[in-house]
Amino acid sequence: MHHKDSPFVIYGTSISPGLGQGITHVHQDLLGPIDVPVDIPHNQVEQELARLDFATAGISNDLVTLATRVEKEIDLRLSEVFGSHQLMLNDPLLQQELRQEVIDNLVSASSAVKAVFLRWERRFLTLESQFARDKGDDMRDISIRLHNALVGVTVHPLEEIPQGCVLIASRLLPSDTVFLSDRAISAVLLEYGSSGSHAALFVRQMGVPCLSGIPDLMKTVPADVLALVDADAGNVTLRPEKRQQAIFHQKVETKAQAYRLAIENARGPAVTLDGIKISVVANVGSDHDTQQAMINGAEGVGLYRMEQAYLGRTEPPSTAELVAEMTQVLAAAKGRSVCVRLLDVGADKPLPFLAFFAESNPALGRRGIRLLLEYPELLRTQLRAVLELSGEFDVRILIPMVTLPEDIVAVKDLLLPLCCEMHVGVPKIGAMIETPAAALSSKAIARHVDFLSFGTNDLTQYTCAADRENASVERYFNDASDPIFRLLSLVHEDVPHMPLSVCGELAGRPEHVAKLLTCGIRTLSVAAPLIPIVKEAIRNCSIYSD
Amino acid sequence: MHHKDSPFVIYGTSISPGLGQGITHVHQDLLGPIDVPVDIPHNQVEQELARLDFATAGISNDLVTLATRVEKEIDLRLSEVFGSHQLMLNDPLLQQELRQEVIDNLVSASSAVKAVFLRWERRFLTLESQFARDKGDDMRDISIRLHNALVGVTVHPLEEIPQGCVLIASRLLPSDTVFLSDRAISAVLLEYGSSGSHAALFVRQMGVPCLSGIPDLMKTVPADVLALVDADAGNVTLRPEKRQQAIFHQKVETKAQAYRLAIENARGPAVTLDGIKISVVANVGSDHDTQQAMINGAEGVGLYRMEQAYLGRTEPPSTAELVAEMTQVLAAAKGRSVCVRLLDVGADKPLPFLAFFAESNPALGRRGIRLLLEYPELLRTQLRAVLELSGEFDVRILIPMVTLPEDIVAVKDLLLPLCCEMHVGVPKIGAMIETPAAALSSKAIARHVDFLSFGTNDLTQYTCAADRENASVERYFNDASDPIFRLLSLVHEDVPHMPLSVCGELAGRPEHVAKLLTCGIRTLSVAAPLIPIVKEAIRNCSIYSD
Repeated sequence: MHHKDSPFVIYGTSISPGLGQGITHVHQDLLGPIDVPVDIPHNQVEQELARLDFATAGISNDLVTLATRVEKEIDLRLSEVFGSHQLMLNDPLLQQELRQEVIDNLVSASSAVKAVFLRWERRFLTLESQFARDKGDDMRDISIRLHNALVGVTVHPLEEIPQGCVLIASRLLPSDTVFLSDRAISAVLLEYGSSGSHAALFVRQMGVPCLSGIPDLMKTVPADVLALVDADAGNVTLRPEKRQQAIFHQKVETKAQAYRLAIENARGPAVTLDGIKISVVANVGSDHDTQQAMINGAEGVGLYRMEQAYLGRTEPPSTAELVAEMTQVLAAAKGRSVCVRLLDVGADKPLPFLAFFAESNPALGRRGIRLLLEYPELLRTQLRAVLELSGEFDVRILIPMVTLPEDIVAVKDLLLPLCCEMHVGVPKIGAMIETPAAALSSKAIARHVDFLSFGTNDLTQYTCAADRENASVERYFNDASDPIFRLLSLVHEDVPHMPLSVCGELAGRPEHVAKLLTCGIRTLSVAAPLIPIVKEAIRNCSIYSD
Repeated sequence: MHHKDSPFVIYGTSISPGLGQGITHVHQDLLGPIDVPVDIPHNQVEQELARLDFATAGISNDLVTLATRVEKEIDLRLSEVFGSHQLMLNDPLLQQELRQEVIDNLVSASSAVKAVFLRWERRFLTLESQFARDKGDDMRDISIRLHNALVGVTVHPLEEIPQGCVLIASRLLPSDTVFLSDRAISAVLLEYGSSGSHAALFVRQMGVPCLSGIPDLMKTVPADVLALVDADAGNVTLRPEKRQQAIFHQKVETKAQAYRLAIENARGPAVTLDGIKISVVANVGSDHDTQQAMINGAEGVGLYRMEQAYLGRTEPPSTAELVAEMTQVLAAAKGRSVCVRLLDVGADKPLPFLAFFAESNPALGRRGIRLLLEYPELLRTQLRAVLELSGEFDVRILIPMVTLPEDIVAVKDLLLPLCCEMHVGVPKIGAMIETPAAALSSKAIARHVDFLSFGTNDLTQYTCAADRENASVERYFNDASDPIFRLLSLVHEDVPHMPLSVCGELAGRPEHVAKLLTCGIRTLSVAAPLIPIVKEAIRNCSIYSD
């Protein structure tokens, strides 16, 4: 314990960089231990069952709304969570078990929710360790939601936290993050949450500095004191002295100035010190992304993800629907080059209208182009939509999860007849290089494409054999490591005249820009907010002279 | 439909090569649709619960016996299935649900088994497609077992099939394979079962030719007709004419002669046409393997798997137990070089005494050395045991799943003090090269080791991003493809003086031996039965001249 008034510093792992200061707000986990079940008389059973149905229907609607909102405002991957929650909540066996609990044990609907969800959580835990963590959080999130609906709590506790505070929590559930997106939080401190967690994804996307992995956080940090969070260095100063505050403000000011400079220069071209022009383009998922990208000086769209248009649907979109969706999202980039990545889903993000089979390692399974080739009509719809856009955009096609040259040949076999049929030219085609096999056979692949784009996130995951969502192998997942740069260099040596781009997170980290350019990369595709600093980094390095 | 007496040919995917002929025996799946539940009077509940307990206890024992028997006689990976079945069967929630079913619904224990297992199967199916296939089979296998025990069936239907027949089945469950190991089956034809399935593992291990993926097999193939199975070419001739039989017998004879020749020469050295001596050693899991390996001319043991000594235990073995186990298994190789691979387990084969966390892609998770480094005492026990064996064997240590040079440094930090303490020399240390990252950084890794051994199965799985157990991405998993040979060559170029071996299945395929030697491989470690043909292949190729 610290003296009541003296300053102290605690340390954590940075899962979202940046500096933030504010008054601490301690958020206690809502779901305590199970209450004593509330018994109900026999004649109240029907009423409780009706309440259960009503709450379930209400939450189902909320989840759909949330998913849509998150998809538009925050991030696709996060929105999928709510889609899967909705499926879990409406699982017929779960619903039956909830009803049975009320009927058999004569308890209230909210007691039933607590008991049944705890049982399901435990079932996952005892049966298959493989599931425990992910599903535990998900189950807990759904049960809190259902419980709140039943007891009449409509305000999410995080909707009431003060603006500008530093949020202190044990962990953030997926639903928590949605409510935080409206609030201007200065920083977040967490007891649990790896850099691959939903929470991490969220705070990074929102640009909120966050430290995690702080043991006993909830006991250590008092409420309502000033906190200076330095998530670049990985520490927090609580109850800082004037001197400490001055140093912190200096840091904030230096950083802000560098950013202002970058923004000012953002619209200009990015040319290295030795005169090489590098193309900086944007990864986009929403119309807001595209708009921001153009304001920040993107020269085009380097990665438009087709998933947005498919997830959350019960039937696959038609060509017209796809065209409408893409036209809307990409509107701000009209006339520019736009690279459309074909649908990249797999057993870890199943779609209701496709057959997905059991896979014990979905990352090594039937995903990306592997799946698309099994559904030629699905692929044809996408190709048609891209061709229709070719009037308004300089449109390119990017094939996800390429392993073999045959993967591309198969796409072209579908594409070329469509081009004839629709009387349009054949657009440029690129292969995502995200499997080591593709990187090692770039010569054979290059024969069939116009450009290559490295998906460094997946490439690293396979090269290092480390799941990027798995915190326990975090130290093995290093996208800025020698093996990855070596693969990039090998490709450049094998196909020196092939245009190479990077669209993984590695492209957005200024400290690695010089190295990427040395490996022959001439296009960097990054999230809209990162464009200015990436351009600045390019302007400060030279490729051929040190 | 074919004319009643005319010969016909059907085609399938070979999941175990070879030629076999025999009379067809059609094996119908035992578990039909759910029977009408058998109601019991109130006073019989206790008796049914006692029967349930009795059957569960009996089967638990059987499963342990089976696991041990399969481990010794067939294969470790197969034996693990029974270990996990035993855990599933004794799951407290499953047991409670079975009892509750009897009590609440007043049905017999065997009705309860059918109903509850079907519910659990469905729960997996509806909730998480990822699980469905694997768990479906497992659940079905356990439930058949429990059901049989309750209705008093003690003979497994496959224990009665005639010697020398060609078995026709929809699929083979893990437990089926055990009963087949006693019978001399000529060949197996299956409707379902990928080359990564348990069934495939089994037939290959037993050397039984097998074709799978034959639609409508059960309806197409009549019982009690002669079948000529050519699992090298992927076809079966049913009711063959005399002429077809003669051709088949000629094929069988040619193959047998080549094998006899190889066996005769097996004890001699394997020297290429241009005079390079290649070392052929064995992968072993049991004393029988080691004995056969020595008879077949193995020069040592290239891969002893530590897993055998750990699986099926509730507590980790002591140093003395490990030494006893290894001494017994390796006895026949006394005085020779023996390469011991440290324990390679992960979340997909959990051990009861280690904490395993949820992993959605266990192949990309906490396995091999990654896990061992979290349990230094577990690792120390293994190192101590290896050091104790160094008097009797020329013992080497092989580190599984190396990604970073630091992985090896950490092992050495534990090993060197033990060598001092035990007054023995430091044994040779090798790194398994099974992640692309390790292959791409062999220079950095080589600084810390005496030799490198390619685990081509895993290396292929990661390089091609294709789970080798996943049938739907089979065409992407190709261990004899250019990217794999390129990684091998890169390592040879990077560290030309480092001894390189291959211990994956690629090493045992004679058609690829020449290519492997060109990539700088000088040691091939293969299953005992393959040693003679691999040696013959070596003698027929030249490395430096074509």
